[in-house]
Formats: sequence, structure tokens, C-alpha cells
Amino acid sequence: MERKVSCVVGIDIGGQSSKIGIVDAAGRVLHRTVLQADGSTDPQVFVGGLAAAVKALVAGSGRQVLAVGVGAPNANYYTGHIAHAPNLPWAADRSVPFAWMLSEALGGLDVTITNDANAAAMGEMTFGVARGMKDFIMITLGTGLGSGIVVNGSLLYGSDGFAGELGHTCAVAENGRLCGCGKRGCLEAYVSSKGVVRTATEWLEAGDEPSELRNCPRITSKAVFEAAERGDALARRVFDYTGGILGRKLADFVHFSAPEAIVLFGGLARAGKYLYEPAWQAMNEHLLAIWKGKVKLLFSSLPESDAAILGASALAWNKLEQTQKQ
Amino acid sequence: MERKVSCVVGIDIGGQSSKIGIVDAAGRVLHRTVLQADGSTDPQVFVGGLAAAVKALVAGSGRQVLAVGVGAPNANYYTGHIAHAPNLPWAADRSVPFAWMLSEALGGLDVTITNDANAAAMGEMTFGVARGMKDFIMITLGTGLGSGIVVNGSLLYGSDGFAGELGHTCAVAENGRLCGCGKRGCLEAYVSSKGVVRTATEWLEAGDEPSELRNCPRITSKAVFEAAERGDALARRVFDYTGGILGRKLADFVHFSAPEAIVLFGGLARAGKYLYEPAWQAMNEHLLAIWKGKVKLLFSSLPESDAAILGASALAWNKLEQTQKQ
Repeated sequence: MERKVSCVVGIDIGGQSSKIGIVDAAGRVLHRTVLQADGSTDPQVFVGGLAAAVKALVAGSGRQVLAVGVGAPNANYYTGHIAHAPNLPWAADRSVPFAWMLSEALGGLDVTITNDANAAAMGEMTFGVARGMKDFIMITLGTGLGSGIVVNGSLLYGSDGFAGELGHTCAVAENGRLCGCGKRGCLEAYVSSKGVVRTATEWLEAGDEPSELRNCPRITSKAVFEAAERGDALARRVFDYTGGILGRKLADFVHFSAPEAIVLFGGLARAGKYLYEPAWQAMNEHLLAIWKGKVKLLFSSLPESDAAILGASALAWNKLEQTQKQ
Repeated sequence: MERKVSCVVGIDIGGQSSKIGIVDAAGRVLHRTVLQADGSTDPQVFVGGLAAAVKALVAGSGRQVLAVGVGAPNANYYTGHIAHAPNLPWAADRSVPFAWMLSEALGGLDVTITNDANAAAMGEMTFGVARGMKDFIMITLGTGLGSGIVVNGSLLYGSDGFAGELGHTCAVAENGRLCGCGKRGCLEAYVSSKGVVRTATEWLEAGDEPSELRNCPRITSKAVFEAAERGDALARRVFDYTGGILGRKLADFVHFSAPEAIVLFGGLARAGKYLYEPAWQAMNEHLLAIWKGKVKLLFSSLPESDAAILGASALAWNKLEQTQKQ
């Protein structure tokens, strides 16, 4: 079994589509395909379609596939289940033994799953800016806020596999916004593309300050970013506010696990300096002296189109390494 | 080398005194002594006196001592240094290579150090209520708020050895109290015996609600507890408020590391139900549905007089085990 020609399959399962890639040990995505979600609520149907797509990709590639890694919302590394994932119709209201089902459908190939943010952290540690780091925190800023925490070189799973739900830590204790999870004041309700839209909308409604966003038919985080780029004062303050909350909570997280770095990834992270500067400032303001100015705040270096596949594949490579050690 | 008669020395270094115990593998403190602090600012003098006390205790015990474990404020497991510990005059304004110095003074005996809250966590895991747990968080409630975090069976040290400074996470984001560390709004400024005294004092000064605490010549957390015991409404609300903040932050910590339990230890934890009930309620209110009612909130089961020595000795036993495995 020569490792140079051997590969793993990395799969990123999302609400709209699932991305599948064949990845070598150097982190090159050699072949890729995308499977559009068909809205089916039957896990068997979904897994069957996914397995067929994987088999076709592998057959066409001529590669030997050693294992499969999957990143998916609400996926549990310990149990191999995907449970109560609102964006996946086939797992919205039940717990699906996904790793087992996909492995069966792929003739017994080893399948490892974890949640999408953990997969992103694994990808960053294996192929990205966190290479060589043993302690860092990955924050994925998209529609929501996800997190993957690496301590002492391993993903932190906790007692039940659900560690790293930093998007649902409390950012605003009094009269906080209602979050999708049913709680109030969650970090994700402020620091995410949805959160940015809510902040901008609230502020536009609360006053009559001029802003080009008033001419926007539908406010998106991208629209707020573009307004900020053109110097719109309200849009810039939206990012100041968002970054300030993010930075204060990042400081909390540093007090917990003393990471070498925090890595930001995802759509909202592209707001770059408008988010970064206030986040960096607030984080350091809230850090103990021993950490001020010392904890790196980085952006992911992985190509965005491949990051999720790379993360999932890193999970599979990591599992293979662990198995070989034993 | 028969393990049954072999022991370790556990040392708890505090501002007022240092406790030294000879502890067997079952967690029995067989011999103990206390060394009063003499206010010396010379680390050599302090270490010399400590080593002499250890030698005398060991000589009188007839036991074979395999290693030494030390819990101390601002002690770093990685470096073996005690640095900038305000309550230790010999380490207040410098970094002292304590583990190395004590080992030298004890003829090369292996010395392992960690901060006092980490030692408490290690003691709880080895001999206390957290026995058998791989993921839990220890919160020590005394003058300040300390924490030791155990993930996957090991103490969490982070990239620099300083992980687990939960007392300095942000509890109040706007106009928070000034903390001893120089930051504002730290958890420790609210949830600690000092914090309880500040809350009671602020509330007494802010209004004229009747309370037996008004007759108190000097308000202490013990006085607030005793007033609560006798039904004093203001004193009870002080604990409601304190427990509420504690519970909200505990929920944050659960979202980070998904522990099986949180263990409370120390003077303020003795306020028992007055602190426990509001903390339990607030924690569960702020937890995601997957954790509601599931994360245990426990009190330490170690005898208070010996807990620190046991924690330090557990550190030494653990190090011995790791060395034997290698």
C-alpha cells in the first residue's frame, strides 16, 4: 500500500449541497464533485445518493481510497450520528447513524464524521495556518458562528462529543436577541452574517441617520460590507460593534484554553479589517496582562472553495494515522 | 520498590502558610505539618525553609518518598516557575524557577508544580467526586475565583501553561467592577468572597432596605451567609445575584468543553443552597437543549483541611504514573 498514490475522500455536507473531493496526503484536492440537495426527508435516500456519487468519483479517478471523512452540521464524532440538524431535512427531527450507514453503503470503508467547524479546524491544523500548532481555536463566521477547539494537538470533543458550541455562549446578558436555538443573547445572534443584518436593520429602523443601506432592497452582510468599503459611517459602526462583541468573547475563550492563535474562517471573515481591527482591540482590552498582544488572530489560509473538503479529508487522514499508531 | 509503603509529598503554598503532607497512593495524609510564612522576599530563604521542613517530616515518618507535588498561586506546570504572585513576597515581582530550586534543595527529588486550582482539580479527579471523570471543570471559590479544567482525562494547560483563568472571563460587559487584575467586569469581582462583600456593601449603601448586615461592624462573606441563614432578605438576594452570574458563566464554560460535571470547592461554596440553587437555575437557563439538566453541578467531597495537600500529591502521583508508562 503506497501512500503516495493512496487518497481519502473528504465530504462536506451542507443544507444546499454536499461537496465531495478525493484528497491526497499533501492536501491536494485531485478530483471533486457536488451533489445538490433534493429535499428528501429519508436518510436512506440521501445516503444512497451520496454513496453513488462517491463511488462514481472514485471509479473515475483511478485512486485507491483508504477512508472517508465527513464534516456536517450537528455531526457527533463519538456516536457517528447526525442529529436534529435543522438544515438537513433527512436529519431535522431525528438522530441518524450516518457514519455506519455511509460505511455500509461504501462496502465497509471506514467513515469518520464530525461537525463542520471541527472539520474546518482539523483542515487548518493539517494543511492551513494552524499547521504545527497544538492549541488554537477555529471560529467559522457564516450564517451562524461555529467553532472547533484544538487542545494539545487534538480536537476537543468533551464528555459527549458536543464541545465547542461557542456560538451559543452568552454575549449579551440583559435583553439579548433571540437566537435560532431558542435562547437569548447568544454570540451567534450578533456575530454572524445574520447578526450583522439584524444590527444594521435595527439601527436603520431606530433612527434616521443617512446611510446608503436605506436604498438597499434587501440588506445582506455583503451589502453592509460593501457600504463600509465605500465609507458608509453606519455600516462601519455595524462592524465596529460586531467586532467588539467578537473580541470580548474571544478573550473569554483565551482565558479558558490559552490558545496560541484564533483562526477566523468563512463568509463574514472576508469583511477583513472592518471586523478584524475592533475584534483585535476588544480582545486585547479584555485579556489578562500575560496574554495582551500575544495571542494571534489569523484568517484561514485555505482556498475557500476547497476548505470544507480539506477539513473533512484531514479528519480521515488523522484517523488513519491514529489507527496505524495503535 | 513496593508501592504500598511508598509515598509522595504534597505541598500547598499559600500567602499565610504552606501545608506539607506525606500522602500514600490511596490518598491518605499520613503525616502533615504547616510552615508559617515569614514575609521573606528572598526565594532562596523560602525554598531553604520549605526543604528543611519537608526533610524533617519525611525523616520522622520512616516512609520512602518518591516525588513531590506542589500547588501554588501563579505556578506554571510547563516552566516550573512561580511568577508574579502578589501574595508571595518572594515571587511578587519576579519569576522564580521554583521546581528546580526545590528539587535541588531536596537532593534531586522530582518536583512538579501547578497552580492551586489545577492541583485541586487533580485531587478531585484522583481522590474526590470527579474520580473516573475524564471531562470536568473545578471552580475554587475563595477570596478569588480559580479554575482547573480537565479534558479527556488531563489538566488543560494550553499553549503556555496558563489555561483556566476563568475568574478573569468577562461577567459584566458594561460598567463592570474593577478587578484586582486591572480589568473591569471579571467574574471574580462578583463571584468570590470579596465579590459577595462588594455586592452586599454596594446594595446597603444604595438604599435603606432593612438588613441585619447594617449592624455588622465589618461585612464578610461569612456574615452575609449567616444573615441569609437567618432569613435576611437582602443577604439572600446577594447570593441569588452571585449565583445567577456564576450560573450564566458556567453555561458558557459548558459550551466550550462539554464537561460531565462542574465541581465547586472552597470557602464560598459552603454557602451551599443559597449559591447553588440560583447557579443551577441560571446555568440551565443558558444551556443549549442538549445539555439542559444534564451537566452535574457538584460540591467537592475532599476534607477541606487536606484538600490542597491531596491535590498537590495527586499531581506527583500522576507524574509518577506517566513516567512509569514511558
